[in-house]
Amino acid sequence: MTADATRARQRLFVSDPITPGCEIELSSEQSHYLEHVMRLKPGTPVKIFNGLDGEWLATINELRKKKGSVAVESQLRAQGTEVGPTLVFAPIKKQRLDFLIEKAVEMGVGRLQPVITQHGITDKVRLDRLQAQVIEAAEQCERLTVPEIFKPVRLLDWVANCPENHHLLFCDETGSGSPIGEVLSQLLAKGAGSAIDNVNVINHALVIGPEGGFSADELERIRKQSFATPVSLGPRILRAETAAIAALTVFQDRLGDWSNQPVTRD
Amino acid sequence: MTADATRARQRLFVSDPITPGCEIELSSEQSHYLEHVMRLKPGTPVKIFNGLDGEWLATINELRKKKGSVAVESQLRAQGTEVGPTLVFAPIKKQRLDFLIEKAVEMGVGRLQPVITQHGITDKVRLDRLQAQVIEAAEQCERLTVPEIFKPVRLLDWVANCPENHHLLFCDETGSGSPIGEVLSQLLAKGAGSAIDNVNVINHALVIGPEGGFSADELERIRKQSFATPVSLGPRILRAETAAIAALTVFQDRLGDWSNQPVTRD
Repeated sequence: MTADATRARQRLFVSDPITPGCEIELSSEQSHYLEHVMRLKPGTPVKIFNGLDGEWLATINELRKKKGSVAVESQLRAQGTEVGPTLVFAPIKKQRLDFLIEKAVEMGVGRLQPVITQHGITDKVRLDRLQAQVIEAAEQCERLTVPEIFKPVRLLDWVANCPENHHLLFCDETGSGSPIGEVLSQLLAKGAGSAIDNVNVINHALVIGPEGGFSADELERIRKQSFATPVSLGPRILRAETAAIAALTVFQDRLGDWSNQPVTRD
Repeated sequence: MTADATRARQRLFVSDPITPGCEIELSSEQSHYLEHVMRLKPGTPVKIFNGLDGEWLATINELRKKKGSVAVESQLRAQGTEVGPTLVFAPIKKQRLDFLIEKAVEMGVGRLQPVITQHGITDKVRLDRLQAQVIEAAEQCERLTVPEIFKPVRLLDWVANCPENHHLLFCDETGSGSPIGEVLSQLLAKGAGSAIDNVNVINHALVIGPEGGFSADELERIRKQSFATPVSLGPRILRAETAAIAALTVFQDRLGDWSNQPVTRD
C-alpha cells in the first residue's frame, strides 16, 4: 500500500542519501517533535529532502524515546537547480536576526555570510543556532536545498578576498547609489546577469550594513572595488533585517527565480 | 541659543498642530520613555512630526512623573507627499503580526486593512496595539506620515465594497497569476501607474491571504472582479508576513517611491 502524499503535512531535512526503499534515521529533535509536538504515529506519511536527491514521500517507521526512522517510498520532486545570491550581513540582536535568517531562506538566498563590521553591535554568531533556523525555514518554504552558512569574518577581509568574478551590490544608506531595481535591470539589459544564467546569480552578493551603517573607512574601501556597486533601498531608513529582505526580494524579482511558478500546495 | 539638530536622536509623533515657538505636551508613555528608558534631561533636542506639518526640531521642556512637554524650534523638513499602496492582510499570530506591521510601515504602506478570511487563524485584532506599533515604526524609519489602520472587515465584504477605480493585486498561492514584478511593469508601461502619479499609487491594494491560503470561494469571487489581478511571488511558499513585505517591496521598486533618494542620516 502506498502512502498518500497529500496527507504528508510534515517536511523534514535529512542528512543521509535517499534511495527508494531505504530506511532513514531521524535526529532526536525530529523524533521528539514528530512524536510529542505533532503527535504523529508510525505509518504517517511525511516528505523528506537532503539537498541532493530531491523530495521524497516516506512513512514513519518507528517513533519512541527520541529515536525514530522513516521508510522511503517514492520521489515527489527531482532535485533540479536552486541558486540564489549570497547575503553578506552584520549580526544583529537575537529576535531580529532570527527573522532575517528565516526570511532570507524563504526569499531563496544561496549562501549566508555573517561579517564583523566597525559599527556592528555584536561579533557573536551562534552558527549551530543559525544552521537549525536555516533548516527549519527550508523545510517550511518547500526548498529542496539548504543555504550554506559561512563562519563570520571581518567585512573588509571578506571584500579583500572576494573573487573578481563576483559582483557586490552594497546597500549604501548614505544614498550614493542608484535604486537597486534600476541597477539590476541595467545588468540584465547588458546581459551581465540573466534569470536563466545560474552562474551569474551565484556570483552576486548583497551586502547589508549593521544598524549603525558602514563606517567611512568601510565605505571608502568597498567603493574602490571595481566589482562593487552601491545601491539604494528607497527613501526611508530601513532596519538591517528589513534591508536584507527587501534587497533579496528585488534581486529575485528582477534577476532571480521569481519568474518561476510556485510549488503547488497539496 | 538654537538646539543642534544633529544631536536629536529621538523622533516623536505628536497629535497637536506644530507651529514655531509653541509648546507641545507629550503622552505619558512618551514622557516615561524619554525620562526613564532614554534618561534624557530638559534641554535635550528631539525631532517631532504629526503627519501634517513636516518634521521639526524641538527641545524637551519638562519631564517629570509621566508628564512632559517640548518647545518647538524650527522646521527640519517640509511635509511633502508620502503615498503608498494599501495592504489588505489576514491577522496572524502575535509576533509575526508585529513584524508584518513594522515592516509594512518601513516599506511605505499607505493604509492597513485587516480582513477576516475563511481560512484565517484569528478574527481578533487589537487596533490600539497596531496603532502604537505603526507610530513606533514611523518614528524609527523617518516617515513624515503614519499609515491609517482600518477596522477589520470580512474579505469578501471589503472586495464587494471596493471602489471601481481601485486595483487589487492579490497574491495567489495557487500560481494562477503572473509574477508581480511583470504585472507591475506592464501597468507602468501602459501608463496606468507611474512613480509620480500619486493618485494611482493610492488606488492600489496588495491583498495577502492567511497562512492557509484563500478559500476556493474567496478566490473565485475575487477573480471575478474586473479590478483584481492575481500575482505570484515566486516558486517558494512564503509565510504570510514574508509575502506582505515582499509584495510591498516589489511594488515600491517597480511603481512606488524607491526611485527617491534616502533621507540623509545625521
